[in-house]
Amino acid sequence: MKIGTVTGSVWATRKAACLQGQTFLVVNVEDGPIVAADQVGAGVGDRVLLATGTVASRYCMDAPVDAAVVAILDPEGR
Amino acid sequence: MKIGTVTGSVWATRKAACLQGQTFLVVNVEDGPIVAADQVGAGVGDRVLLATGTVASRYCMDAPVDAAVVAILDPEGR
Amino acid sequence: MKIGTVTGSVWATRKAACLQGQTFLVVNVEDGPIVAADQVGAGVGDRVLLATGTVASRYCMDAPVDAAVVAILDPEGR
Amino acid sequence: MKIGTVTGSVWATRKAACLQGQTFLVVNVEDGPIVAADQVGAGVGDRVLLATGTVASRYCMDAPVDAAVVAILDPEGR
Amino acid sequence: MKIGTVTGSVWATRKAACLQGQTFLVVNVEDGPIVAADQVGAGVGDRVLLATGTVASRYCMDAPVDAAVVAILDPEGR
Repeated sequence: MKIGTVTGSVWATRKAACLQGQTFLVVNVEDGPIVAADQVGAGVGDRVLLATGTVASRYCMDAPVDAAVVAILDPEGR
Repeated sequence: MKIGTVTGSVWATRKAACLQGQTFLVVNVEDGPIVAADQVGAGVGDRVLLATGTVASRYCMDAPVDAAVVAILDPEGR
Repeated sequence: MKIGTVTGSVWATRKAACLQGQTFLVVNVEDGPIVAADQVGAGVGDRVLLATGTVASRYCMDAPVDAAVVAILDPEGR
Repeated sequence: MKIGTVTGSVWATRKAACLQGQTFLVVNVEDGPIVAADQVGAGVGDRVLLATGTVASRYCMDAPVDAAVVAILDPEGR
Repeated sequence: MKIGTVTGSVWATRKAACLQGQTFLVVNVEDGPIVAADQVGAGVGDRVLLATGTVASRYCMDAPVDAAVVAILDPEGR
């Protein structure tokens, strides 16, 4: 799993119907920014743990997403 | 999920039968161009959100594709 | 999905029994050569579209392959 | 599978409910640090074998994790 | 699928119970060494074909492995 820092969010009016209601955060990981669905409630500046691939989709009720925030690291964590 | 910009499309007369009817866009992401199935209706210049892997295939009715456009980002998005 | 150019093929006498009958092509993609199962009939010099991961395995009747040629791009394509 | 060395652990109070009870280790692999669930009992300094992707999730009772320690290499190993 | 050359093996006394009996080889591929389960009988110096991800796990009876040797290339192959 990757550790990254939330830097913002993205918005899309035109999207797959099954993405309705998902929140998408931009997360900076070591090899650049990726977009992840968030159901944990992370905000800008939070260091988060990401699950990727089919695992992320399952966690998001099978929505077509391939990255999801699954935890917010405690400030002292690492 | 990756953010990229649509730069064109590809055409293939000889292909897997189950790909019939799929539209394939060339999308420039940070680490180069990738080809993604599109069912959202993106066009050249659009910034899009891509789902990859098995997730993309499921979203495309189990077609043998490993990348799909799932959203078109709003112009001000990021 | 990746675009690549077929540069040759590989042969293996000793292999998983379930790979019997599969054709394996060497395909040069942007980040180096990969080997892909081919059921479309591609030849050396063809520009092809590859599906990777579990998606490729399903397309090849669940054989243990993680890359497959799913389309041959039309010459003018891109 | 990747070989890496355990360098620490991460803690997260706010996380997906289904991650309760999982231990997360920071493991340095060749291309940087990744976080992996551990059910084998690895400690700092151990060289470990990681499984990634859906495979790791299944091994961890379908928790939303995409990397797991599956073995601790014997000191003389490699 | 990746082509690599077997350079050795790794041993792990402490491991997931379901990995009992699996042989793990170190295989040098273009982007570094990876560890793969072997059920084909490859040895040091053999050039092999690797399947990765969930595909490899299925091939190894759902063991928590994400890379497997599925073929040994014929010496003249490539």
